[in-house]
Amino acid sequence: MSILAVGSVAFDNITTPSGSVANALGGSSTYFALAASYFAEVRLVAVVGDDFTSEHENVFRRRGVDTAGIERASGKTFRWGGRYAENLNEAKTEFTELNVFEKFQPRIPSAYKDSPFLFLGNIHPVLQATVRRELSRVKLTGGDTMNFWIQRTNRELRDTLKVMDVLLINDTEAKMLAEEPSLPRAARKVLDLGPQALVMKHGEYGATIFFREGAFGVGKHPFRAPALPLEEVRDPTGAGDSFAGGFMGYLASQATLNREVLKRALFYGGVMGSFAVERFGTERLERLTREEIDARFEIFRELTHLE
Amino acid sequence: MSILAVGSVAFDNITTPSGSVANALGGSSTYFALAASYFAEVRLVAVVGDDFTSEHENVFRRRGVDTAGIERASGKTFRWGGRYAENLNEAKTEFTELNVFEKFQPRIPSAYKDSPFLFLGNIHPVLQATVRRELSRVKLTGGDTMNFWIQRTNRELRDTLKVMDVLLINDTEAKMLAEEPSLPRAARKVLDLGPQALVMKHGEYGATIFFREGAFGVGKHPFRAPALPLEEVRDPTGAGDSFAGGFMGYLASQATLNREVLKRALFYGGVMGSFAVERFGTERLERLTREEIDARFEIFRELTHLE
Repeated sequence: MSILAVGSVAFDNITTPSGSVANALGGSSTYFALAASYFAEVRLVAVVGDDFTSEHENVFRRRGVDTAGIERASGKTFRWGGRYAENLNEAKTEFTELNVFEKFQPRIPSAYKDSPFLFLGNIHPVLQATVRRELSRVKLTGGDTMNFWIQRTNRELRDTLKVMDVLLINDTEAKMLAEEPSLPRAARKVLDLGPQALVMKHGEYGATIFFREGAFGVGKHPFRAPALPLEEVRDPTGAGDSFAGGFMGYLASQATLNREVLKRALFYGGVMGSFAVERFGTERLERLTREEIDARFEIFRELTHLE
Repeated sequence: MSILAVGSVAFDNITTPSGSVANALGGSSTYFALAASYFAEVRLVAVVGDDFTSEHENVFRRRGVDTAGIERASGKTFRWGGRYAENLNEAKTEFTELNVFEKFQPRIPSAYKDSPFLFLGNIHPVLQATVRRELSRVKLTGGDTMNFWIQRTNRELRDTLKVMDVLLINDTEAKMLAEEPSLPRAARKVLDLGPQALVMKHGEYGATIFFREGAFGVGKHPFRAPALPLEEVRDPTGAGDSFAGGFMGYLASQATLNREVLKRALFYGGVMGSFAVERFGTERLERLTREEIDARFEIFRELTHLE
């Protein structure tokens, strides 16, 4: 089934201990769309500038991503520059030029309005809610947010969380949103804000999904998927967005949504994140095969499964 | 089979956001011994002072721990005071009084010399190596260390690592020992120093076991066990030592040592760590049942197992 993804397309300058790239196609919805494209049809709603060429568009098209929702605005595409230190845990932002993204007002092509899956990328929560309202046949809405929105638009974000089924954020964001230093208690508080499930991403330690009581079936325990201990991480950019793409993509490929399916989706999220960081930018995500993905899924399974 | 454990017995003053205790029986080998006692016979080699009463000894005896190796020295027992902030990740040490522990020279009762399992607690690496040499029938040696020994006695520690089969340390210690910020690369470097396997403890994110090529069977991938997302952690003191006790105890209860057994041991380590932190000091570890332990093992399994 189709996933409508809304978010940013950007050009990134990235420096890591392994090297650097300039003007690399990036942005949260780019990583999301490429990762999800191995599982489901992806429809992209984003804005780009005059510097976005057919060559860039072909990166999406080769993966079957529907680009009709990519709006061309006059000006430059969103640009970001970041540098990772030796431990690779967090990028130091060197510059952020929002450019055409600053005035982004998502426009949903009418052909997209029947999308059964929706992913609300990391944009203003009011825009996220607007997009959600325009779709009437959504089975499941996933979403992301970040410290900026948690701090600056907290009330609006809390409203938007009421229409999100699954929120995917990292540990720091969860603690900030819940105002609670304990991760399990933060999870409960975030679920009290509306989502049916919370995916908390722990970086190199994997991710945990917490369920609201009774959501997606019964059971009182969360579920944890590992991350692959990779000796060589070349570029962590987009790992979280690729995780979300694998997670949502797998859900959209399944006939029913229950806890077991969401658990498997958590593993596929980790799998796609692990591919993303092996090369700079989107390089690895552009040229995967479903066989490689499923082989790595088995490695992830073996990483935590007892006989 | 029996485990000989050498390490510290202490009296702790602990303050956490949940409360505080004073003069609570603690020390690394206390937590280790109590946790391991649910799986195997534990023989304890440690030193205590005049303030160690029969009431304290009975804590061990009730769990069937052999206390013949606890030496009584003139003076006070090792005392430690620590305080945990809201996030519970690390204790701020308020005082350390080594007392009789300062001159600790482990003496192995002759009845202990046939011990097939050995756990070298966090003491001077030269003492660790001395203890190892006194035992001639050891099947497996596990060990711990800490930043103090890594920095102050690095050469001696490297020598001792050559006689350890499994080293159990946390992420920070592994990075420090390997002088390497990437955990998977740090793991490889630590294994190059001698151990057959490295258990890297990630706190609330669980633990990973990395195997030296060909050790305990075949396979090239590490294995990860989760930690339980506990909403209420009352006192994190002793979590790592209890983990080691569960890990080593389970190994000592098994007829053969292969990767599958070590993987299960990693889960039991997490299980015992999760019990330890539910109450202050050793309270929870003193009164468990094997049924409670196995029930929690099943929860740990469900936490990462796909159907």
